[in-house]
Amino acid sequence: MDLGLLYSGGKDSTLAALLLDDFYDVTLVTAHLGVTDDWRHARETAETTGFAFETVELDDDDATEAVEQMVEDGYPRNGIQQVHQRALEAVAEMDFDAIADGTRRDDRVPTVSRAQAQSLEDRHGVDYIVPLAGFGRGAVDRLVEANLSVESGPSEEVRKADYEAELRALLAREHGENAVEDVFPDHEQTYVTGLVADR
Amino acid sequence: MDLGLLYSGGKDSTLAALLLDDFYDVTLVTAHLGVTDDWRHARETAETTGFAFETVELDDDDATEAVEQMVEDGYPRNGIQQVHQRALEAVAEMDFDAIADGTRRDDRVPTVSRAQAQSLEDRHGVDYIVPLAGFGRGAVDRLVEANLSVESGPSEEVRKADYEAELRALLAREHGENAVEDVFPDHEQTYVTGLVADR
Repeated sequence: MDLGLLYSGGKDSTLAALLLDDFYDVTLVTAHLGVTDDWRHARETAETTGFAFETVELDDDDATEAVEQMVEDGYPRNGIQQVHQRALEAVAEMDFDAIADGTRRDDRVPTVSRAQAQSLEDRHGVDYIVPLAGFGRGAVDRLVEANLSVESGPSEEVRKADYEAELRALLAREHGENAVEDVFPDHEQTYVTGLVADR
Repeated sequence: MDLGLLYSGGKDSTLAALLLDDFYDVTLVTAHLGVTDDWRHARETAETTGFAFETVELDDDDATEAVEQMVEDGYPRNGIQQVHQRALEAVAEMDFDAIADGTRRDDRVPTVSRAQAQSLEDRHGVDYIVPLAGFGRGAVDRLVEANLSVESGPSEEVRKADYEAELRALLAREHGENAVEDVFPDHEQTYVTGLVADR
């Protein structure tokens, strides 16, 4: 069964890929907004970890809408949630039997409710799988330590390929650098540099 | 990391074991109520699938309480939920780094909320993992077909080792055979007979 996993190059979506690897033919799919070429970081991680890799570009309107939502809110949660849902829809429209993402049990954003998951499955005729939905923060941290080589740091410094980087760039372009600081709180990001040798 | 998986011999908990197998040292743990020796069916499946196996016996009071709850309700859901939670507590008190069960995304019972999961983790110092929490009914069915040999049929006919069989037996003993029919609606159960050869 062919599975497309929405992929950022970070620890969660890489761990999700490893969990599914024995059961599906996994392709990592990085959604991008056409704003920067940060998606190339995800391609590097896909090569290092040995997974197939594809990209999918979202509509300009989706990016603009998300940025306006974030400026209106003064925080990024709803905008990121919107882009995540658009990205899932885009992967669901590709030619996979199943799709997946790296959302964890303890994530506040993005989240997909059971009803939204079932709706996605019914409308697109795919299985939608969230391999980390039943893993808490502690379990994820321990699995990452045992299986992945990771670099981490503040969001604006770590190499990353998810649309947060592009949303920041778009926000800066449309509303100035100060808008980025207003909307995005400081938080840690991770980027996977490889698999642990003796896993 | 040592993980104890609450185990019934059915397709869901066997699939959960396979999903975790690359990442943990998995021991299948069957909880029983001391009413019947149906737990032996789970031991057979554990042997066939190559996993370590242990049992844990729950308190008589837990069984009696669950049965009285079911008689009062006229349906089994709350009683089964109670026993499931007791069983998770019992496995959490054993000597594992992590515990798990075979609950799926679309299950109505048993369910464990995120708050309950975090409470279990905090009180016992273990990770509590629900590997199928992010898998819907269709995904589980397709994974089972690709990976497990299964027999299925009405609850009262299929070999099984979960506490539902014991709760039925206890209910019949305390309240007569008719009480079992009153409380338990007809539904399908599964029993895993092995792994698919070419998985």
